[in-house]
Amino acid sequence: MDPRRAIAHLRSLDELTGGPAGARRVCWTPDWVAAREFLGGLLAELPGVAVERDCAGNLWGTLAGRSEQTVVVGSHLDSVPAGGWLDGALGVMGALEVLSAAAEGPDPPAHTVALVDWADEEGARFGHSLLGSSAFAGTLDLDSVARLRDGDGVALSEALAAQGVAVAGMNGAGMQRRERIAAYLELHIEQGPVLEAEGLSCGAVLGCVGVERHRLVFGGRTAHAGSTPMDRRSDAGVAAARVMTGLPEIGARHGGVCTAGRLDLDPGIVTAVPGRAELLVDQRHLDPGALAAMLADARSLWSSAAEGEGCTVEAQTIWRIAATPFHEGLVGAARRACSEASGSDSPLPSGALHDAAQMAPLVPSAMVFSSSTGGISHAPEENTPELDLEVALEAFGRLARSVIEYGVSTEAA
Amino acid sequence: MDPRRAIAHLRSLDELTGGPAGARRVCWTPDWVAAREFLGGLLAELPGVAVERDCAGNLWGTLAGRSEQTVVVGSHLDSVPAGGWLDGALGVMGALEVLSAAAEGPDPPAHTVALVDWADEEGARFGHSLLGSSAFAGTLDLDSVARLRDGDGVALSEALAAQGVAVAGMNGAGMQRRERIAAYLELHIEQGPVLEAEGLSCGAVLGCVGVERHRLVFGGRTAHAGSTPMDRRSDAGVAAARVMTGLPEIGARHGGVCTAGRLDLDPGIVTAVPGRAELLVDQRHLDPGALAAMLADARSLWSSAAEGEGCTVEAQTIWRIAATPFHEGLVGAARRACSEASGSDSPLPSGALHDAAQMAPLVPSAMVFSSSTGGISHAPEENTPELDLEVALEAFGRLARSVIEYGVSTEAA
Repeated sequence: MDPRRAIAHLRSLDELTGGPAGARRVCWTPDWVAAREFLGGLLAELPGVAVERDCAGNLWGTLAGRSEQTVVVGSHLDSVPAGGWLDGALGVMGALEVLSAAAEGPDPPAHTVALVDWADEEGARFGHSLLGSSAFAGTLDLDSVARLRDGDGVALSEALAAQGVAVAGMNGAGMQRRERIAAYLELHIEQGPVLEAEGLSCGAVLGCVGVERHRLVFGGRTAHAGSTPMDRRSDAGVAAARVMTGLPEIGARHGGVCTAGRLDLDPGIVTAVPGRAELLVDQRHLDPGALAAMLADARSLWSSAAEGEGCTVEAQTIWRIAATPFHEGLVGAARRACSEASGSDSPLPSGALHDAAQMAPLVPSAMVFSSSTGGISHAPEENTPELDLEVALEAFGRLARSVIEYGVSTEAA
Repeated sequence: MDPRRAIAHLRSLDELTGGPAGARRVCWTPDWVAAREFLGGLLAELPGVAVERDCAGNLWGTLAGRSEQTVVVGSHLDSVPAGGWLDGALGVMGALEVLSAAAEGPDPPAHTVALVDWADEEGARFGHSLLGSSAFAGTLDLDSVARLRDGDGVALSEALAAQGVAVAGMNGAGMQRRERIAAYLELHIEQGPVLEAEGLSCGAVLGCVGVERHRLVFGGRTAHAGSTPMDRRSDAGVAAARVMTGLPEIGARHGGVCTAGRLDLDPGIVTAVPGRAELLVDQRHLDPGALAAMLADARSLWSSAAEGEGCTVEAQTIWRIAATPFHEGLVGAARRACSEASGSDSPLPSGALHDAAQMAPLVPSAMVFSSSTGGISHAPEENTPELDLEVALEAFGRLARSVIEYGVSTEAA
């Protein structure tokens, strides 16, 4: 594992498909194809590595080991528009180093090693995240996917067909490989402020949090802002605001996160008491019981907030996903690797989703995070200090090497 | 004064320029011109009444009395799109009855009586409220008015020129008349729920409230909703919400009104902690000292709300107008008239602005409100029970008759 070579590859990739205005590797676009070609060129230089694309458009580079049982390392090259240089690409170039180290060794590795570059993790163009890894897991809803269109009206199915991917066959992508996978390992930038705040370069990831996402619609009475006394109002905006101010305490108390990211007031003018308010609420926790408790608390909050203002409230679930804890033994191995590389071990949950969340229900999976400057991501300013990148790559290399050589331990940290 | 005839005129006007979809008498449009022609026809039937239009487009019907000192009665025929049948029109048809009663009497009245139909009270097409009465008061900002355009790009100056009104000359509208005005009296629908809630048909108006209107911009830190722990956030949305939840208490404590009618969160997506929030706040009170105290309390609230969330806050004044208390003697006369007509007297402030707010600084002014079903206005559903309309018209007629005959008393209620 040569962390500096991985960083050099990241910089070359950024020159080719990014720059000061940010990464532009939106999946299924020419810049993404160029990034794939760059990766393909690097894979082609590795002795004994077979490169192929599965029927969901995921790119694989496989080195046969002494066993067919495969350790998969990877992440995604695709980015959001004006994205960061590390989001996804760090994990792919880290995986390339793992594969290189195995390919350049004197003997075949104990396990087969496969690099994967998942297609369309971001869903930036068509709105469906984790597309390639969902298909690999066989869980893609093909009917709804086939209906997706980009902002220019181009159908996802057309764009994928132009890249040789037939939507109808995507869920078959993992059929041949899934059973032979011993472990899935992914390196990623944290995209949050936790490691930086603790002064850590990297950390083992405990799992991907579960998400409860709701749309709340408060119904009050639209009224003239000047001529309606305070005690004769049913202000839907105030009811929604009471939820917004109560959520932080719920999140903090349960050790999760609660966010109100959007509020629409109706009629939404300065001279009217809002008669309707629509609030979007996102709650996340790694522990399913705690997530359920947070949701129960939030339900009490929005019911009492509505009642207090003489308003009605209806809650619609927009999206929910169960928490995905990673494999105990692999998390333990990741913690040891981080500790060896950085001198410190402080595991953390992932508040964002990753391709690993699709893999974890199928095969033992784990992740390592690098620190994230200011917690900023999905932006050109996204960064990790170079020293932290080196340490994180080193930790990931140690983790992968141990799993490739010794397999998955069931021993927790 | 024949309240039933006034109501019949209102219904005829509604048939002509309104209906189930609401009043469509937007100023400077053909429907408004039709309403004016209807009024002109009724005025032409009154013996001794001279009809003319001033250079701001206000319509006057004047009956000479034994004195040149004039009691002006009026309101506005123009409406918002899909407006109510009574907003403005009630006061004009009430004024017509006052003028009719004076014109039909055996002798000339003690004071000259003038009906006025103010042009463009609503500002519905070009965005400037109280246009005609502001010009009459000589306070119109001609430069800014000349730049106004409607939604189709038509300049206000062009639309007015087509109706024979030259913007440059508008502020001269009141020059000849202002000095001879002894009093200004206006009947209007409350557009609020207070009288209805108290079981009253009508009420004397104490004055028009002062308004303090601000745009607050909270600056926090945009962050990932999943990966940013609660204790590492600067959530501009939460800061704004703390203001929204604190305002009702401030309004109630000071006996005024405080409203947050619009909130815009940025980036405004469910997966991001808002880094920026823009909140519009409207505060109103009849008492200038209490309005200042409400504003001071709100300033403390928004400063501490920002500080508590680690955010910045900037406040811009969007609009402010001083409170306009009405003339003590005339309010007293209006209270007596309401008490005589309805058997009850419970004066109230006007939370909305009216043409009377432009007149009150110039001449002794007062208003009478009719009740407003559900407090709904600026909507086709706007209504006042017919019995309440009769009582309110009767009260207004008593008030006008006493002022026309005996002049303005300085005696408060």
